[in-house]
Amino acid sequence: MPAKVAVYRKEHFNAAHRLHNSAWSEQDNDKIFGKCNNPNYHGHNYELIVKLVGEPAADTGYVMDLKVLSDLINETVLKKFDHKNLNLDVPEFKNLNPTAENIVIVIYNLLRPNIDAQLDVQVRLYETERNFVEYPI
Amino acid sequence: MPAKVAVYRKEHFNAAHRLHNSAWSEQDNDKIFGKCNNPNYHGHNYELIVKLVGEPAADTGYVMDLKVLSDLINETVLKKFDHKNLNLDVPEFKNLNPTAENIVIVIYNLLRPNIDAQLDVQVRLYETERNFVEYPI
Amino acid sequence: MPAKVAVYRKEHFNAAHRLHNSAWSEQDNDKIFGKCNNPNYHGHNYELIVKLVGEPAADTGYVMDLKVLSDLINETVLKKFDHKNLNLDVPEFKNLNPTAENIVIVIYNLLRPNIDAQLDVQVRLYETERNFVEYPI
Amino acid sequence: MPAKVAVYRKEHFNAAHRLHNSAWSEQDNDKIFGKCNNPNYHGHNYELIVKLVGEPAADTGYVMDLKVLSDLINETVLKKFDHKNLNLDVPEFKNLNPTAENIVIVIYNLLRPNIDAQLDVQVRLYETERNFVEYPI
Amino acid sequence: MPAKVAVYRKEHFNAAHRLHNSAWSEQDNDKIFGKCNNPNYHGHNYELIVKLVGEPAADTGYVMDLKVLSDLINETVLKKFDHKNLNLDVPEFKNLNPTAENIVIVIYNLLRPNIDAQLDVQVRLYETERNFVEYPI
Amino acid sequence: MPAKVAVYRKEHFNAAHRLHNSAWSEQDNDKIFGKCNNPNYHGHNYELIVKLVGEPAADTGYVMDLKVLSDLINETVLKKFDHKNLNLDVPEFKNLNPTAENIVIVIYNLLRPNIDAQLDVQVRLYETERNFVEYPI
Repeated sequence: MPAKVAVYRKEHFNAAHRLHNSAWSEQDNDKIFGKCNNPNYHGHNYELIVKLVGEPAADTGYVMDLKVLSDLINETVLKKFDHKNLNLDVPEFKNLNPTAENIVIVIYNLLRPNIDAQLDVQVRLYETERNFVEYPI
Repeated sequence: MPAKVAVYRKEHFNAAHRLHNSAWSEQDNDKIFGKCNNPNYHGHNYELIVKLVGEPAADTGYVMDLKVLSDLINETVLKKFDHKNLNLDVPEFKNLNPTAENIVIVIYNLLRPNIDAQLDVQVRLYETERNFVEYPI
Repeated sequence: MPAKVAVYRKEHFNAAHRLHNSAWSEQDNDKIFGKCNNPNYHGHNYELIVKLVGEPAADTGYVMDLKVLSDLINETVLKKFDHKNLNLDVPEFKNLNPTAENIVIVIYNLLRPNIDAQLDVQVRLYETERNFVEYPI
Repeated sequence: MPAKVAVYRKEHFNAAHRLHNSAWSEQDNDKIFGKCNNPNYHGHNYELIVKLVGEPAADTGYVMDLKVLSDLINETVLKKFDHKNLNLDVPEFKNLNPTAENIVIVIYNLLRPNIDAQLDVQVRLYETERNFVEYPI
Repeated sequence: MPAKVAVYRKEHFNAAHRLHNSAWSEQDNDKIFGKCNNPNYHGHNYELIVKLVGEPAADTGYVMDLKVLSDLINETVLKKFDHKNLNLDVPEFKNLNPTAENIVIVIYNLLRPNIDAQLDVQVRLYETERNFVEYPI
Repeated sequence: MPAKVAVYRKEHFNAAHRLHNSAWSEQDNDKIFGKCNNPNYHGHNYELIVKLVGEPAADTGYVMDLKVLSDLINETVLKKFDHKNLNLDVPEFKNLNPTAENIVIVIYNLLRPNIDAQLDVQVRLYETERNFVEYPI
C-alpha cells in the first residue's frame, strides 16, 4: 500500500501594499491599521511555501516534480504578484484588503485548480520573519 | 462561508535555567540531566511562536491584529520570562522542572485565557535551533 | 491528566545521489529527472527533523531525552547516510530511486522500531532550503 | 593597552520603492531597471546591520551599549524609513534613485553625526537575502 | 567625490565531490580526509556570495546591476558546477583536490576576467552552514 | 605563489551570565545594565565563528583541517563555557564583566596560542541574532 508524503516548495516575491478599509473614516483606518495604512504604501519580501500531500508515483518516486511545481507557482502566482503593488496591480485586491490572511487565500485559490485534484494543497505565507499565515486549516 | 486561516507571531526571550529533580540524588540528577544540571545554571535564547486559528474578520481581514498579539505575548509571557532565571524568578517553576516541554505548557496556560475563546491556540518553543517543542497537539 | 507535547530534534548529513529509473531509456530519464540524472552524481546537505509526540514524564519533564534521541538518530540513520553515496553505499536504495520522498520513508522505517511505541513519530527532510518533504501524514 | 572590538546591531524596516531615472525615457528606464521600475512601486523587508569599532570601556565592558545604539537607529533611521515609500516619503530620495547602494549611503550619513567620533561606523543593508550592500569600504 | 560601496550577490549550487590525494596511500588518504575520502563521493548544497567593490554610477545608482551579476555567475560558474561531480565533471579539479579552499580560488579565477577591472572582487563559499571560506584576502 | 584564503568554523554554546560592576552601587548597575543585571542571571545560545587566514597546503588543499579546528575549539573553549555560568564557573570572568566584548577577547586569548603562528585568527561571537561582536580588528 503506497504511503502519503507531504512535499513542500518555497518561492518568494517582493511587493508593495497598503492596509485600508474604504468604508471607514481615515481616523478609523489609522487607529486599526496604524503605519500599515500609509497612503503611499510600504512593502515586503514575501516568502511562500506550497505543501502538497499525496502518494509518490512508483516509477518516479515523486509526489509531484518540484521543478514543475516551481514553474506552476511562478506562472500562476509570481507573475501576478512579484514587483507589484498588490492594491493597484492585482485585480483580486481591488475590493479586498491585502492582509496576509487575504493574500494567502487568494494564492490558494489561484493554485488549487491547477494542481491534480488527488493532491491536498496548503499554502504558508511569510509577510516578515515574525508574521506569517497558513491556509487552509 | 468564511474560511479558517492560521496566523503566527514569533517573539523571543533570553533566560537562565537548570534541570533538576529535588527528589533525586545528585548522582541521579547528574546521570539524567548531565550538564543541564549545572547548579549555577546555564541559559538560552528562546524563540517562541504563537499560532492562532480562526476566520478573518470581514472588515479588517485579520484573524487577530498581530501587533495586538505581540503586545499580549510581551505583557503575559515575556515580562515574566525575559532576562530571568526560570527556576528562581518564575513562580510556575518553583516545583516544576523547566524543561522545554514544561515551559511550553506554562506559556500556553498563560496565554489561553487572554485570547478570544473562538480562536484555537498552539505554542512552539525553540530552546535551540536543534531542540524544540509544541503544545497542545 | 497529562498533556501531549511534540518534541523535535534536528540533525544533518551530507550525501551524494542520482535520480534514475533503470527501466527507462536514457532519453526518458533525462526528460523526467533532468540534471538530477547526472551519471556522476551530485549532492546535498540534508537537514533532518524528527518529531515525537507523547506525554512528558512526571519525574523528568521529558517526552524523550533529546540527547538520547540525537544519539539514536546518529546510530540508526546518520552512520548509514552521512558522507555516503545513497545509490551505491546505502542498500535500501539499490532498487529504490533516492528522491526526497523515498529517503524520508526509509529514514522513518529505520527509526520507528527503535522508538517507544507509545510515541508518535514523524520525519521532515530538507533536500535544499526550498525543497522538503514530510512523512507520515 | 585596550584592544579594539567590533560590535554589531541588527534592525529591520519594511518599505516601498521604485527604481527610476527621470532624465531617461520610459523605454530606457524599463531596459535598465526592468520590473524594479514598476510605476506603482514594489517593496522589501530591509535588514540593517550597524557595525561600530572601538575600545571597550573599562568600567562597563561595552564599546557602546547596544540598547542605546538600537534606540539611536530607531530614532534616526527607522522612524524615517519604516512602513514608508522611500521615493515619496523620504526627502533624501526626492532626487536620488533609492537603489540599495544609495540607501546605505543615506543611512550612514544619518547615523555618523550621532555616534561618538572615536568609533568607526559601517552599515550593511540587505534588500533581500540574496542582494545586499555595505558602506563605507 | 563618489564613495565606494560593496555589493553582494548570493547564489547556490548542489554538487558531489571527494577529497583525495592520488600521490598518497589509501591509508594516508583515510587518515587525513576521513569520511570525506569516500570513493563513491558525498555532496553539498554550496552557497556562493560574490562581493564587488566600486563607485555607484551617477545615472543608475548601481555599482553593478545585480541581475547582470547573477546572470554572469550562472553562466560562468553554476553551469559548470551545479548538479555536477566536481572531481569527474569539472576539468579544473582533474588534478586539484576539491577542498572548499581550492573551489573558492577556482570560482574567483573564473569570475575575475569577466568583471570590470575597476571593481574589486571577493568570493565567499559555504560548504556547510558551519564550514566556509573566502578568497582573496 | 600560493594565495591566502580565509577559512571559518562555526560552533555554539549555551551559558548563563549577569552584567555587573561590583565597584558600583546597585542603582548604577541597574541604570547601566538594566535587566542584564538580574542577580539570578539570564542566558544565551552563543554562536561562535573562528576565522583563520593562511595559504592552503599543496598536498591537502587545506589551510587547516576544519575537523581539527572544531576539536580544538571544543577542547579549548566549549568545555569551559558550554552549559556554564560565565560569572561563577569561568575563572576568567571572576573580575571581568562578561559582556560580549569581553567574552570574545577571552575566547581569542584561549585559542591564539593553540593555533599555528603563521595563521591569522579572528573570532566573531553572536550573543543573539541581533547583537554580535568581533575581535581583533
